[in-house]
Amino acid sequence: MGRRLYDLAAAEDDRRFSPFCWRVRLALRHKGLTFETVPWRFTEKEAIAPSGQGRVPVLVDGERWLSDSWAIAEYLEAAYPGPSLFGGPAGKALSRFVCDWVDTILVPLLFRLIAPDIVAQIAEKDRDYFRNTREARLGRPLESLLPEREHHRAVLHDALAPLRRTLRNQACLCGDGPAWGDMAVFGALQWCRCISPFEVLSPAAPGQSDPVWTWRERMLDAYGGEGRRTPAAVA
Amino acid sequence: MGRRLYDLAAAEDDRRFSPFCWRVRLALRHKGLTFETVPWRFTEKEAIAPSGQGRVPVLVDGERWLSDSWAIAEYLEAAYPGPSLFGGPAGKALSRFVCDWVDTILVPLLFRLIAPDIVAQIAEKDRDYFRNTREARLGRPLESLLPEREHHRAVLHDALAPLRRTLRNQACLCGDGPAWGDMAVFGALQWCRCISPFEVLSPAAPGQSDPVWTWRERMLDAYGGEGRRTPAAVA
Repeated sequence: MGRRLYDLAAAEDDRRFSPFCWRVRLALRHKGLTFETVPWRFTEKEAIAPSGQGRVPVLVDGERWLSDSWAIAEYLEAAYPGPSLFGGPAGKALSRFVCDWVDTILVPLLFRLIAPDIVAQIAEKDRDYFRNTREARLGRPLESLLPEREHHRAVLHDALAPLRRTLRNQACLCGDGPAWGDMAVFGALQWCRCISPFEVLSPAAPGQSDPVWTWRERMLDAYGGEGRRTPAAVA
Repeated sequence: MGRRLYDLAAAEDDRRFSPFCWRVRLALRHKGLTFETVPWRFTEKEAIAPSGQGRVPVLVDGERWLSDSWAIAEYLEAAYPGPSLFGGPAGKALSRFVCDWVDTILVPLLFRLIAPDIVAQIAEKDRDYFRNTREARLGRPLESLLPEREHHRAVLHDALAPLRRTLRNQACLCGDGPAWGDMAVFGALQWCRCISPFEVLSPAAPGQSDPVWTWRERMLDAYGGEGRRTPAAVA
């Protein structure tokens, strides 16, 4: 039957940028599973209707339709042997905290940095949908975020302090190599890289390196360069 | 030989309030180890000189002097069987991230809420030391924080969003029961409870409960009520 992942795409089919789809793509690779991806746009709700909801990632594994990145990770961990995504019950419980940190802290901050670029780079048929839903949430035009970028990047830099400190002591968030927690954080940074030419990580202090930056490079190279194959957005 | 923990005390010997010592107290209980605690003040550097540094927690286990809460946790995990503090390599790696989140995000925010009370509640001989070192770091008098309390509590509430979301889905940060990650977060809240009458957690919305609050209650009761035996500070 095979496996297919409905994967959020921008104007071009090969520009995939959902932070939550990126988690699942790397998780499938982590488990050594083959899959094809299907470019999907925000407004193509019918295509994923069998999943019972309207957002991606949606994974179709044989006859089974799955949605929600956390539920997909739980499914993959239970259904397939091979390298663990969580590393046991404690690792799973703590991985959930990492996801919650990404979703409640990082994603809202990153959104403020890249939202004006998203609307410019997505498929034309998606633009009204994206602008209307996001401006309703934000309470003002997306473009009003542009003059605030340096400020929000500095706020993000401070919010990344715990990750930066952890990555000074170990190669990945989950240990020596990447696992689900790494994919959750990387997915958020990859979202930015693929859809916005703005560099969200602050430049490192002269003579220093940023462990978050070097870890992101390693994550781009991981799993045969799965992340790096999608080119960075250009202005 | 026995085991003794040098444990930061306020004016009264039995008011112990170091967030890092609380981690170790609960970790010793988690491992089922017996120990005595020695009340220690900021200025009693000679008492812990054999540890090679000047801060608590310091654990003396037989002939061995240990310092730094993370190093002590690693030592206990390696030296003693019984319930794990980390739950394997992934759990350990992710527990480090939790500690880094507590130390870089929560502790600085909590400090702004309780610092004026700390200076009022600690031993008289410690007050100049505490005020001078902390005001040098803060750049202004500790009491200047008092009018900002409601603001900083709201900032803390937002910073606790990931923990709140996680605890809606599981009993403890590390899974069904507490482990090192829970002790790291609890230690920071217990620091506040023991030294300041100000309630750092925002009141829950009417008709709702705060999962962080109910988890803190469970942590106070855990290990035979080790945390609750130290009474909450009063004004």
